[in-house]
Parts: sequence; C-alpha cells; structure tokens
Amino acid sequence: MSQTQTPTASANNKSNDTETAILRVVPLGGLGEIGKNMMILEYDEDIIIIDVGLMFPTADMHGVDVVIPDIEYLLDKLDRVRGIFLSHGHEDHIGGLPYMVEEGLKAPVYATALTRGLLEGKLRENRLLGDVDLHTIHFDSVIEAGHFTVEFFHTCHSFPDSVGLAIQTPLGRIIHTSDYKFDPSPADGKLTEMDKLRRWGDEGVLLLMADSTNAESRGRTPSEVMIEENLTKIFADAPGRVLLSTFASNVSRVQQVINAARKNGRRVGVTGRSMINNVKIAGTLGYLDVTQAELLSTKEIENLPGEEVVVVSTGSQGEPTSAMVRMSMGEHRQIKLRPGDTVVISASPIPGNEELFNRTIDNLFRQGATVVYHALADIHVSGHGGRDEYTEMLEIVRPQFFIPAHGEYRHLVLHGQLAEAAGVPKDNIYVIEDGQIVEIGNYDTQNPNHIQARLGERISAPHVLVDGLGVGDVGSVVLRDRGHLAEDGFIVCIVAMDEFDNSIIYGPEIISRGFVYMRESEDLISRAEDVVRKAVR
Amino acid sequence: MSQTQTPTASANNKSNDTETAILRVVPLGGLGEIGKNMMILEYDEDIIIIDVGLMFPTADMHGVDVVIPDIEYLLDKLDRVRGIFLSHGHEDHIGGLPYMVEEGLKAPVYATALTRGLLEGKLRENRLLGDVDLHTIHFDSVIEAGHFTVEFFHTCHSFPDSVGLAIQTPLGRIIHTSDYKFDPSPADGKLTEMDKLRRWGDEGVLLLMADSTNAESRGRTPSEVMIEENLTKIFADAPGRVLLSTFASNVSRVQQVINAARKNGRRVGVTGRSMINNVKIAGTLGYLDVTQAELLSTKEIENLPGEEVVVVSTGSQGEPTSAMVRMSMGEHRQIKLRPGDTVVISASPIPGNEELFNRTIDNLFRQGATVVYHALADIHVSGHGGRDEYTEMLEIVRPQFFIPAHGEYRHLVLHGQLAEAAGVPKDNIYVIEDGQIVEIGNYDTQNPNHIQARLGERISAPHVLVDGLGVGDVGSVVLRDRGHLAEDGFIVCIVAMDEFDNSIIYGPEIISRGFVYMRESEDLISRAEDVVRKAVR
Repeated sequence: MSQTQTPTASANNKSNDTETAILRVVPLGGLGEIGKNMMILEYDEDIIIIDVGLMFPTADMHGVDVVIPDIEYLLDKLDRVRGIFLSHGHEDHIGGLPYMVEEGLKAPVYATALTRGLLEGKLRENRLLGDVDLHTIHFDSVIEAGHFTVEFFHTCHSFPDSVGLAIQTPLGRIIHTSDYKFDPSPADGKLTEMDKLRRWGDEGVLLLMADSTNAESRGRTPSEVMIEENLTKIFADAPGRVLLSTFASNVSRVQQVINAARKNGRRVGVTGRSMINNVKIAGTLGYLDVTQAELLSTKEIENLPGEEVVVVSTGSQGEPTSAMVRMSMGEHRQIKLRPGDTVVISASPIPGNEELFNRTIDNLFRQGATVVYHALADIHVSGHGGRDEYTEMLEIVRPQFFIPAHGEYRHLVLHGQLAEAAGVPKDNIYVIEDGQIVEIGNYDTQNPNHIQARLGERISAPHVLVDGLGVGDVGSVVLRDRGHLAEDGFIVCIVAMDEFDNSIIYGPEIISRGFVYMRESEDLISRAEDVVRKAVR
Repeated sequence: MSQTQTPTASANNKSNDTETAILRVVPLGGLGEIGKNMMILEYDEDIIIIDVGLMFPTADMHGVDVVIPDIEYLLDKLDRVRGIFLSHGHEDHIGGLPYMVEEGLKAPVYATALTRGLLEGKLRENRLLGDVDLHTIHFDSVIEAGHFTVEFFHTCHSFPDSVGLAIQTPLGRIIHTSDYKFDPSPADGKLTEMDKLRRWGDEGVLLLMADSTNAESRGRTPSEVMIEENLTKIFADAPGRVLLSTFASNVSRVQQVINAARKNGRRVGVTGRSMINNVKIAGTLGYLDVTQAELLSTKEIENLPGEEVVVVSTGSQGEPTSAMVRMSMGEHRQIKLRPGDTVVISASPIPGNEELFNRTIDNLFRQGATVVYHALADIHVSGHGGRDEYTEMLEIVRPQFFIPAHGEYRHLVLHGQLAEAAGVPKDNIYVIEDGQIVEIGNYDTQNPNHIQARLGERISAPHVLVDGLGVGDVGSVVLRDRGHLAEDGFIVCIVAMDEFDNSIIYGPEIISRGFVYMRESEDLISRAEDVVRKAVR
C-alpha cells in the first residue's frame, strides 16, 4: 500500500470517539459477471446491502431460469442488516430480493418510487409483500443505518430516478455509482448530480466502487436526445403503422416514443404483459406523461388508419414468448403484421443473445415489414457511460481506494487501468471478483489517521441456480449431466433375468431419446440388443 | 418483369444456333444463412457447382458437429455435373465437399493453389484424395464445362488468391462474386480485379449473385494496411513475448505478423494443430514469405528473451480445445503464460460466439497477461466489404437480374434494397432462400432477345446435420429430444411384475440424470417410488 496522505482524515476524526473497527467490503455478485449485483458493507455490528439482483443463465446453464447470489455468508448475520438500498429497478439490481426474503432477509428496503413500484409487483406475485418493510427515498434523502449514513445522487441510466450511493462510514465516505452515464440531455431532463459528486470529491472519498459495464467502449455514450429526434423522423416517414419494441423497464424510451408519436399525429398502443404492466405502474406514479384514456385499444391498433398508429411492444431481445416475436411469426392473437408496417427495434442485443435477436429481425422481414434496427439507424444508446465518462468520474471523486464493480473480469481490469491512469495509486486499486473480501481499517497504531486496505478472506460465492420452483437444487453435477444429455442423448437398456438360472426372461429392451431417430435405426438397435445379450451371457 | 432492353443480347445471339433451354439457378446453401455456401447452375444437360461449404451449428443444434447442404436434388443428376468451382479455401466454401464425394459427387474440382492445398489435406484425412479430380486454376484461367465457360477474377478477402466467377452461358454472363472486398492496399498487394468487372459490366451481365454478409455494415471495410502498422506498434511496445491468435486460414494475417515481428527484431513460433498445418502448406506453396528454419521451436518460445518472441496461435474464437484457450487456462503443455506477456487477439467474435470469446479474454487477463483485442485496438478488419462496396459492385456490373447471396435473410433483403437504389429494377431482384429455384429463359417467342426470369420450383433444402460419424441421422425429432433433455434431464422408472399375480417383484427403481442431484434428493425419490407403487396397484 502506498503511504499517501489520506484525504479522508477529517472524516476519520469525526469518529475517533468510537472504537475503530474494520470496514469489510464483501462482493456477493456482479464482480466478474454482468448481473446479480449485490454488495455488502460491514462495520462493527452493522451491515448494509447495496442491490440484490439476479442474472440470466449463460448458454451452458441448461434449463436454468435465473441465477441469484449465494447469501450463505449473510445467513448467520441477518439480524445485523440495517438496510437494503436499491439503486434502480432493473432485474440485475432487484430481481434476487424476493428469493432472499424467503431465506429470511427482513431489513428495511430503500428505493425511489418506480423501483419500489416494480419491486412491489414482484413481491405481490410471490405473496411476500407483507413481509418487507419498504421505504421510498428521494435524491436528497439521508438514511441512518447503524454506523452508516447513506445519501444518494441521481444518475442518468435507462431507468428513471436511478441513484448512486454516498455512504458515510466511521473510516470515511464510500461512493457506489451503480449503473450510470453522464448524459448532458437525458430524456427526462434529470442530469446526473455532478455537483454532489464534486463536493464529496473535494471533501475526500475513501473508496469508490463504480460501474464497469462499458469499460470496452471508447469515448462517451451519445445522448438520449438524439434518439427522440431519430424516432420522430422514422415515424414521419413510415407510410403505415409503426410497431416498436424496447425494454419494458425503459420508461424514458417509452416516453420518447409517445412524444415522437404526438409530433406525428399518431397515438400509442401497448402490447406485451410486462410492457402493459410497467406503463400502468409508471403512469400511476407520474413517470409517464400519458393518460390511460390516450392509449390505443387493440381494436384501434388493427382498425385505425396505419398512419395514426404506434404500438409499443416487448420482445426487443427476441424473447421466444414475447409480443414482438409472436408478431414476427404471425402468431400474435390480436396484432397481425401487414404490408406497409414499419417495425422499429429500439435496443441492442445483449451479449450472448445475438442469435435470438437476429432470428426475430429475419422473421419480421419475412413478414414483409420494413424493419429498422440498431445496425441501420441510431435508435438506441447504452444506459451505461463509456470509458471517458469513467475517467471523468474518477477525476471528480479522486478516491483513495478503488474497486471496479459491475463487469466481467476484463471490464474490471480495464476499469482498473483507467483508475491508475487517472491517478489512483496502483496498490490502492482492487480488481476483485465475487467472494473476495477487502478490509479497510487503521492498522497502524502509531498513525491513527492512516487508513489502509488489504485483501481479506475469500469466501465461497457460487451461482445459485433457480430451475422452476427449485432454488439451488440444480448444481454443477446436474448441469454437467444435462450438457452430456444435450450432446448425445441417452440410452437405457433393461433386462430382466431369472434369479435361479440367470436366463433372460425379459428384454433386452433399449430405450433412447436424443441419440438417433429410433424408427430409422431398427437395425442399429437390434444389433445393440445382440451385444447386450452376449454381454449378459 | 420489366421490359428493359437486355444488355446480354449479343451473348444470346452467339448461342442462337443451339436450341435455347432454361437456365436454372438452384441455391442449396448460403441463402438465408451464413455458411455452407453451395450454388448450382443448370442449363440443358449441364450442371456446374459453385462452392460446397459447411456451417457450424447454432446453439439449438445440440451435439451437432457441422451442418452441410442437402444434395438430394443432385443425386439423380450426378453424371451431369461438369465442374465444381471453389472460390476460396474457407470451411463455408469447401468444407462440405468430402461428404458430397462420399455420396458420389465426382466431377472435376477447380481451385487456386492454396484452396486446393487445404482441400487436399481434408480429402487425405478422409481417405478420399484419390477419388477427386483436382485442377489448379489461375486468375486468368478459362474452363469449359459443357454449355458453361467459366472465367475468374481475383478478389480481396481474408484468404489468399480468392476468386469470383464470371460464367458465360448461352443466355448471357453470370457473375458470382463469392466473398470479397475492395481493399485498396491488401496485405499481399493483390487488388480485386476491377478492370475485369468493368469490362464485363460494359459487355453486359445477365445475372449478378453477390456476397451479402456485411449488408448491415455502413461505409467501406478499412484497409488491411492499417493492421500491419498497428501490430508493428503493439509488438514494439510489448515488454516481453507477444502471443497472437487469428484464424488459421488467414494466411495474409500471419504474413503481417511475420512482417511486424521482423521490424521489431522478433522471430515467430507457431502453435495449434491447424495453424501449424496451414503455415506449412502455405509456406510450401509460396504463400508465406518465411522459411521453416526461421520459425521458432517450442523450446525457443519458452527460453529466448521475451522481446525476441512472437507466437502465432489458433483459438481466436475461444474454441475450447485450441492452443490459445489452453494457454488461457494454464493448460498448454509447452507454453505457459507469464507476467510481461502480451496477448493479441487479431479477430472479432463470429456472431453467436461472443460468450466463448469473452470468457477466453477474461481468463487471459486472470493469467496476468496484457490482452489486446478488437474492442481496444484496430487489429482486425472484416474479410467482407461494407455497404458502399456492395453499391460499387452493383454500379460496375449493372446486371439485368440480381440475387443477393451469402447472408441471413435480413442481409439478403438489405442487399436487395441496395441493388434497387443502384438501379436494378425491383422486379429483377430475387431475394430468395435455399431451395428456391430461379429460372431464366427466353419465354417470349415473338422476341427471342428478351430474356426473362421467374421463380421456379421450391425444392426441399434442409440442413443435413453431422454428429460424429453419422451424416443425417440426427434430425429434428432427435434435436427436439436433446433440447428437452438439456432443459429437464430424464427420469426412467423400472418395475418388474409377476406375470401371474401382477405383484411387484423388482423395483420400482428410479434412474435419473440431469434432473436433480440424486444424493441430496433421497426423500423426493422415495416419495416418487411410492407414487409408482400406488399407480401399479
């Protein structure tokens, strides 16, 4: 560790009357992967949790529905959790919480209104709503949680009223950005609160943890303002209906669509369960400038002149049961694509999802629609900042210690390199993955203002796989077997033998699935039966 | 069809002495997909074939090794095939040929030297080399094949001495570009032969079939010249060894690496079976400016000072058993990564392959290497031209009819739109997929110079799946079962009953794989056995 004069000295002095303990940073998810974000801060007897997300399975996790963090580490400390802070309402930040509540996590939950609204829907579905102590926060809320005092700053992201956290601890201030970008002209007009970041930077920040998702993206993420302009033009040029799909949680994008429609004398209809649901919640909570009466019915979508119609739909990732995919296959019950329709996909494929995404585009073209998508027009931007924004964050906050968060390993390494270039001493940068604890404390009794960090224990933080209703009963052995079955299928051979003379009294019968087409392989099967007969003898 | 004055009138006149037949264009692969390119041209009793490729399976083709075209259509016409013309040596253009040879396809095969060299290797592995009549062609070769006269033009592509075809038929000239780009400064200095294209364009072209792979890529593909410059700089800056992976067939890229190494006083070693193999063949045939003696041995790779060493490796796509992946896991037998090593991935992930690609980058970083890849530096360009190059091709050739080739459906549609913008009449553009025959002929007895086209029969052109040694015995039923097994695993229940009193004399025994972890589910299993007992009673 370098011997830099710590900028958090004043913060330390404030807490010199309490006995200094060690601050433990325990990443349970999101470090070394994109998804299931969950970060624990622990000081003395107090614990707070930042986000409890889920992750969608990778291609080799056959049959798995979602992946959640392992909270083994927390199970004997649940009564010490003083608060759960949710930065925003995306699945990778809130989707794991219902599972954790079932495991006994009962601390107060803090979130801005729309995040809370979506979480309530999830908890209600799981009949857990009564079990959770929910609190709505605002950008300027201050929450006391044991030794921790938590403040917030608004961040631009593809979810309204996203926040980052500034956490005052006895050892100094910790900033966790969660997902963010510095959009100078966001769709809802609410900027990332740079003034707060600057003030905290000037006061001194002990530790910065920051989003690394776009650590491979050069420059800055273009502004959302461009999207609405481009959509307005596309809607103006479209000869008939416009059918647009985007992420159901991207409420700002839906507002941009409504705005672009209004400018073109079009009205908007909604299809797809989660889109209908989110538009309703967002409308009720004042996040959408549209009345339910203004929205088109399914009947109007089919019967109004095409040039008056826009439809907002789920399915921007080619999800097999989504409304847009059903339309692309001609299988949507109410809405049939027809010549003159323009389909707009206002999203990019999530890495790993390109095949489904592209297949949907192909099928939309096969239906005869004009299809506009990210490769052809600028109708989507990332919700995360680019490398230059990461550098700007580092230069504003000027932390003593830095932990890159939210990213696969290469993203964390690249973000660490940016931090070093921005002046964070190399030894103060901790590129760590889930389960690797970092301990921050005053280990130097001679110099009580000298805060140091070190690697702590490496705890087990495996994926917990959710398959249907089963949480955690699918593990690596079952996955390995599923992988083998997918590759080769299976063969079971049944033989019943007489217990006295060992003669075959039934079989051999060969049962197989996924091996070869049995009806066309009778010869192969009968030869296999012969082999079994010989082996039995 | 529009009544344009056909520019191929002179060509038609030449053949007016023969009775005019219909020219059939039969796409068996590569239209509606990226891969397994295979195009049939048929006139009177003569057939020629352009490329016989294979395709790698999509994620839902569990256990499938490769996919090849179905040649059912050809099986009763094999004796009419006058020639098989291979545009270049990539798998998606030659990889299907050995399978077709086994099915009885025996016509003369024409290819430039390196393509022939790689094909010979494949045929030798399959003990088929003696069965194939191979001919080496040059850019200015002219091959007579029944009614067809085939000429060639060199194209820039990520394979040396790639060619497109210009085929004189009794109805006019057909140009098939195969894969191409217009690189003004290619690695080997050999330009796409635009002069030939211009001449043929001036003389009149009946039909253009052209590569659509990059129909989503705006502008032009940057020149290869930049790659060598950037590699030279990366090699100069690397403090120790450089380990670079690229496609084994990208011989020009290997030459660029050798050149960049020489400029930095480094020598090059080779690892990975197909890379070693291709470097040897390319060296022997004069495609690589390097002697075997110049290449580093494995021992030198490990023992020479790092700043003198470059290693060229397979594994640029994160292929699980490749040399680079083994290095990234610390499992390569000879070469161990060490601090100070710089790894360069000179390739982009093939769509659908991002997960394996990214995982390898992550593991290389975990080994402590500095990793340079496409997201961070301009060290790879596509082997295919961009949209502006497609437009230029269309403007030079000015075909009467146009069929977009080599692409998934959306690529074909987009390429068709470019053709329309470039002046090809909309009715003369055939956006078709595998199996859809197009017939070109003089159907108008009043006007013998008026050549028309129409959609012909739509034949079945399914994927033929190769699983291990089995060709075609894995079909949709088996794949569907494998998909179910991957999702859920299987349970088999065995009960033996007395044939007289129906009592259970053995079992119930439950066998399961990929369902739940059996050792931790004894209770579940014994309850399932109870259910079976009850059902039997």
